Amino acid sequence: VFEVSDLTKVLLGPASIELGKRLAETLGAESVPVESKSFPDSESYVRISGDVSGENVVIAQSTYPPQDRHLVQLLQLLDTARDLEASKLVAVVPYLAYSRQDKRFRSGEAVTVKTVVKLVEAAGADSLTTVDVHSDKILELFKIKALNVSAMSAIGEYFSSLRLREPYVFAPDAGALDRAKIVAEQLDAEYAFFQKQRDRTTGAIKTEAKDVRVKDRDTIIVDDIISTGSTIANAASILRRQGARSIYVACTHPLLLPGAKEKIIAAGANEIIGTDCVASDVSRVSVASIIAESLRKIL
Amino acid sequence: VFEVSDLTKVLLGPASIELGKRLAETLGAESVPVESKSFPDSESYVRISGDVSGENVVIAQSTYPPQDRHLVQLLQLLDTARDLEASKLVAVVPYLAYSRQDKRFRSGEAVTVKTVVKLVEAAGADSLTTVDVHSDKILELFKIKALNVSAMSAIGEYFSSLRLREPYVFAPDAGALDRAKIVAEQLDAEYAFFQKQRDRTTGAIKTEAKDVRVKDRDTIIVDDIISTGSTIANAASILRRQGARSIYVACTHPLLLPGAKEKIIAAGANEIIGTDCVASDVSRVSVASIIAESLRKIL
Repeated sequence: VFEVSDLTKVLLGPASIELGKRLAETLGAESVPVESKSFPDSESYVRISGDVSGENVVIAQSTYPPQDRHLVQLLQLLDTARDLEASKLVAVVPYLAYSRQDKRFRSGEAVTVKTVVKLVEAAGADSLTTVDVHSDKILELFKIKALNVSAMSAIGEYFSSLRLREPYVFAPDAGALDRAKIVAEQLDAEYAFFQKQRDRTTGAIKTEAKDVRVKDRDTIIVDDIISTGSTIANAASILRRQGARSIYVACTHPLLLPGAKEKIIAAGANEIIGTDCVASDVSRVSVASIIAESLRKIL
Repeated sequence: VFEVSDLTKVLLGPASIELGKRLAETLGAESVPVESKSFPDSESYVRISGDVSGENVVIAQSTYPPQDRHLVQLLQLLDTARDLEASKLVAVVPYLAYSRQDKRFRSGEAVTVKTVVKLVEAAGADSLTTVDVHSDKILELFKIKALNVSAMSAIGEYFSSLRLREPYVFAPDAGALDRAKIVAEQLDAEYAFFQKQRDRTTGAIKTEAKDVRVKDRDTIIVDDIISTGSTIANAASILRRQGARSIYVACTHPLLLPGAKEKIIAAGANEIIGTDCVASDVSRVSVASIIAESLRKIL
């Protein structure tokens, strides 16, 4: 039987160096550095600086923006490890690029997540773990074993340590309610979601939550991804107007496109927290132990 | 038997719109536009704006810089056309990204062209045509039919129409001599190559050509790729010093990284000409008919 202790090496993909190191530590495996650079013509170069021949290897490489560069690096590392005669190859891709392109809305549109799945398999992955993926159905596209885990318990743990006052956890929309629930239950807190409504004439999106009693309470808004930050900023400004004592914003994937952080802070949030699924300066929560745990299931 | 006339559609990949149109015209096939954009988070979106179901389809999509974006678009288009139940899929990839990463110089390095070949095949290509690829050996990596054609006859034709005075064709290094020869023979001209030598102490590269009699003659420097332009600029400045009447610079793939054009012109070149393997403002020569001809061989 193949066990987690048989995973002897963790490749530190350029997009997930810190997460990779933490994962290696958690697994008791050896970190293998990856040299990476861009050639003057902007081609991606990677080099595995360690021996992987005959080893069972975890490749930690997230595919947050720039997605295409990070995706190509992932494929380079998989194919190179395969070429160097690694034994098992486990891809750890916490943010799976293109996972929101999972449906054909208009004829002729690319359903790119299908393509990404095909490419990862063709490059040599034997299994894959991802975190808070856009839709669980994506997993069905894989022929190899694929697993989606949630970062919410790690986020809940983070807030548990803060000793919040009567915390109240919010999902910025109905789709995120399950995630808010996980965090809320860990804090023994209330939870609710905001309703997004599109104005039929102006097309503007209005956010509202009914019966929200947050006056003088610590609040947390939880989501899977923060990109432009508009949804979160709407929610934060409502909580601010209703007299919340503090507003924490937490997410699994802090993509935080230019201007997003400023927008959220300007709307009244006190702090933004993300996980190391995306390397950023707000990535204060690690998913390393959640991923290590998932590897037990996937092997 | 499958014939060129059975190729009924040419997809105009975002990197090769003009070449694709010319190719469709040459083949007597229908051009199929491709809608493309970047989402705010910078993911690539493509949509095939036409019916390809049951059709034999050429996908024209070069992979010059930004290579990763153009490569992802190529893979999206292949996989989408396959998904939409196209019959045969012929990839026309005039500039094949990563083809210079074809050897492992240091242990652990990615030989990325191998990976690219794998991905193109996994995405659904039945055959592939490329132009003046870095090394012919790359073709051996393909399981599908793959062909490399030279743009030099089209470049030779271009110069034939210019009525040059005692033309002299130069290769900027020994490796490009075969290409210079093709152009020279079309012009009934002399040809030679420059010798690159690396100074053993300073590491600087010196370029020289022996017995070059170019005074008052029209000269042409021919290469496959112009990236930084340094090699070409060295050669041009020698020809200028030796009194050439004019110096034309021609290449298949005008990558022309920032500053390259200026460098070459400052060195004394009169004009830079490239082909539509790479869409650029110097792409005045089309490889459409050369590619159309190659498709006869590949089917």
